[in-house]
Amino acid sequence: MQHLLTLEGMPRDTIVALLDRAQAFVDDADADHRSILAGRAICTLFFEPSTRTRLSFQRAAQRLGADVLNFDAATSSTTKGETARDTLKTIEAMGVHGFVVRHAENGAVAALAQAANPGTALLNAGDGRSAHPTQGLLDMLTLRQAKGADFSKLKVLIVGDVRHSRVARSDLHALRALGAGEIRVCGPKSLLPEDDGTLAGCTVTQDFDAALDGIDAVMMLRLQRERMAEGLVASLDDYRRDFGLTIARLKRASGDAVVLHPGPMNRGVEIDDEVADGPQSLILRQVANGVPVRMAVLEALLHV
Amino acid sequence: MQHLLTLEGMPRDTIVALLDRAQAFVDDADADHRSILAGRAICTLFFEPSTRTRLSFQRAAQRLGADVLNFDAATSSTTKGETARDTLKTIEAMGVHGFVVRHAENGAVAALAQAANPGTALLNAGDGRSAHPTQGLLDMLTLRQAKGADFSKLKVLIVGDVRHSRVARSDLHALRALGAGEIRVCGPKSLLPEDDGTLAGCTVTQDFDAALDGIDAVMMLRLQRERMAEGLVASLDDYRRDFGLTIARLKRASGDAVVLHPGPMNRGVEIDDEVADGPQSLILRQVANGVPVRMAVLEALLHV
Amino acid sequence: MQHLLTLEGMPRDTIVALLDRAQAFVDDADADHRSILAGRAICTLFFEPSTRTRLSFQRAAQRLGADVLNFDAATSSTTKGETARDTLKTIEAMGVHGFVVRHAENGAVAALAQAANPGTALLNAGDGRSAHPTQGLLDMLTLRQAKGADFSKLKVLIVGDVRHSRVARSDLHALRALGAGEIRVCGPKSLLPEDDGTLAGCTVTQDFDAALDGIDAVMMLRLQRERMAEGLVASLDDYRRDFGLTIARLKRASGDAVVLHPGPMNRGVEIDDEVADGPQSLILRQVANGVPVRMAVLEALLHV
Repeated sequence: MQHLLTLEGMPRDTIVALLDRAQAFVDDADADHRSILAGRAICTLFFEPSTRTRLSFQRAAQRLGADVLNFDAATSSTTKGETARDTLKTIEAMGVHGFVVRHAENGAVAALAQAANPGTALLNAGDGRSAHPTQGLLDMLTLRQAKGADFSKLKVLIVGDVRHSRVARSDLHALRALGAGEIRVCGPKSLLPEDDGTLAGCTVTQDFDAALDGIDAVMMLRLQRERMAEGLVASLDDYRRDFGLTIARLKRASGDAVVLHPGPMNRGVEIDDEVADGPQSLILRQVANGVPVRMAVLEALLHV
Repeated sequence: MQHLLTLEGMPRDTIVALLDRAQAFVDDADADHRSILAGRAICTLFFEPSTRTRLSFQRAAQRLGADVLNFDAATSSTTKGETARDTLKTIEAMGVHGFVVRHAENGAVAALAQAANPGTALLNAGDGRSAHPTQGLLDMLTLRQAKGADFSKLKVLIVGDVRHSRVARSDLHALRALGAGEIRVCGPKSLLPEDDGTLAGCTVTQDFDAALDGIDAVMMLRLQRERMAEGLVASLDDYRRDFGLTIARLKRASGDAVVLHPGPMNRGVEIDDEVADGPQSLILRQVANGVPVRMAVLEALLHV
Repeated sequence: MQHLLTLEGMPRDTIVALLDRAQAFVDDADADHRSILAGRAICTLFFEPSTRTRLSFQRAAQRLGADVLNFDAATSSTTKGETARDTLKTIEAMGVHGFVVRHAENGAVAALAQAANPGTALLNAGDGRSAHPTQGLLDMLTLRQAKGADFSKLKVLIVGDVRHSRVARSDLHALRALGAGEIRVCGPKSLLPEDDGTLAGCTVTQDFDAALDGIDAVMMLRLQRERMAEGLVASLDDYRRDFGLTIARLKRASGDAVVLHPGPMNRGVEIDDEVADGPQSLILRQVANGVPVRMAVLEALLHV
């Protein structure tokens, strides 16, 4: 594996091996892993702004002893007119071995990976609405910690703007690879994907209350405010009424159901405070798992 | 001590111990202290822009071997709509042990500290007009190096916009704790605090010339240009005439009086070049002391 | 040598020694050089934005084990009103031993160097149109790798906006010091220097085709788009027709001629894709050489 571009089509064993390694980093939280990537250099190359994902990768790289360069291509004035490919090739020539890349366009990271040298690894940190593979992996690690390694009896519900969500797509890829027992998807029709295969095998509904029945894990998605400007959502109040996870609604799920959200949250819109901060929330656990998951991926791609 | 939020109410012995440790770092400037915080991670979390304080904390953390993440919340577009508390909790979950926080609102850092886990330390790097405790400590270290450890005979004058100054408040807290012999405060009435206890025990005057008589240390404050827009200062010329420290004026102070300023300076407004760059100025010494003082604080809060 | 401000007047032996050391870093690419600058601190102090040069210096500093602070003075709001000198002196006081400085004004870095302490090194990372010495050195290293150490038979052509180019000036200084056999300069009259000695000893022409005859190395310069707004260039199409390096044009040069460009490139303007990405292009090699050249300079100035 030279790059990590998507979880689509990734074999179950590969996913499980990455999760196992990430779990080992969790279990061994105080160990010094700095020799693993000592002398290796990683560049965060963000063509779309992001703080959380960048910090999480930085922390992972620090714990592995890698050197980190940061390039915020979204705000750089100096690369105006330069192609993303030239930017990548330039920084690669400086002796950078891995790139953590975020880009607003679908497939942009895969296209850049075509231009990379054989010894260079690209990690997709989110491209368009296509994929966010490390988020998918950290969500699976979080589910596995809570519910065990056998996903075959797991009933999972994904709620919200699946159409525009790379998180949802990577979660769906991973859930299928791990053999999740049942995957339900719920959201307003305007925010569900067109008939492009994204929801193959999923039960799809607009009725959030019904969809929660007997569910083991609720994976909430962030509502981007721009969906209102685009006319895809009538109002935040309407959205909350139909698709917001309240404490009352959560009671419809299985008694030990867990709640996930990739952040940042719109509190009071897609999720209420009582749920986000309640005992069933794994939201901060997800963030915590992001670091060991990214350590596992960086090690797999960059350790020599 | 889990956090460093303010010097108000801090026992004299605690302050002295921090200053002693900082002085040891000064005396041992070339030693390698990287093992002290090796494996520990610190995030500078700035909700208000600042470069000097952030760089000083970064340098202190580097010298102690800590990993540093930087998050400029003031300019981040990705956390719009996210609460400061959620931002803190998210980065904390990534395995960050200490936060250096600046915020424009009084008490904001203390409020965030309420949300931190028991093992997480918050360092107030300036909140509103309330406190800037490491600046207070580095000012005390600078005074102690110049004037000795016995503050009881020391006559100190603080000049300028005390009303809006967190530096002045932290200096006042520290000077009182260390038993300064006399504290005078001088500035235009519009820039002096209302009757809120800030100036308890201080001699207050608008007559800069008289206030300088026999003084051992003059602590100048920066005049924010926005005070003119707010109508609190008539003009820079007027301000300089009444409250600018000129070489002529400095002669009214004790012959070996020292001059401090937290920077950045408005040269030709609150302080003249001849003073700022003259033999009585300790302004660059203050900056230099900022690093060992922050090392002492980081060690006290984060060393395991 | 306390600072590296310009290559003008630098003895041939000094340049050769720096290139030799850089070549040793190239030959020994996997070695661990972190002890060379362990415990030393460097600040990138950019009063004009730049990403590529800053990243290259950062990577060089990382490979030498130095601590790095970054200060983007161009975008910092906190230092408004502070002089560049005060900014430098402040960060210097924090225990920073070397500064990598970029500034929009000619001679600004040399002026700042006057203010530095005896133990502090300033490295000019580009000032106005005056000098960009590490770019000059990396260009010489690239030429030497391709053409050998004896420059006396080398015919070099510099093409483009020499008037505004610090890269061209540093290249000219270095080529003269190394005894280049022939230096030709080609560009529109509006973009050639006035009679200020810059082109002393050079053959100057506006006829790009004729200038290429028998040349061994073509050093293309970036065309800043602002030259059009200034009326110095009629149109990009006209510029490409007269001064763009096409594959057809390159055939006029020596059969084993090499092509250099400091980046970022305006593809399709001063250089065509087939040339930039072709077998005679050394453009990515230049970028790669930037890191060992900067390592050699940082070591020479900062190793204790």
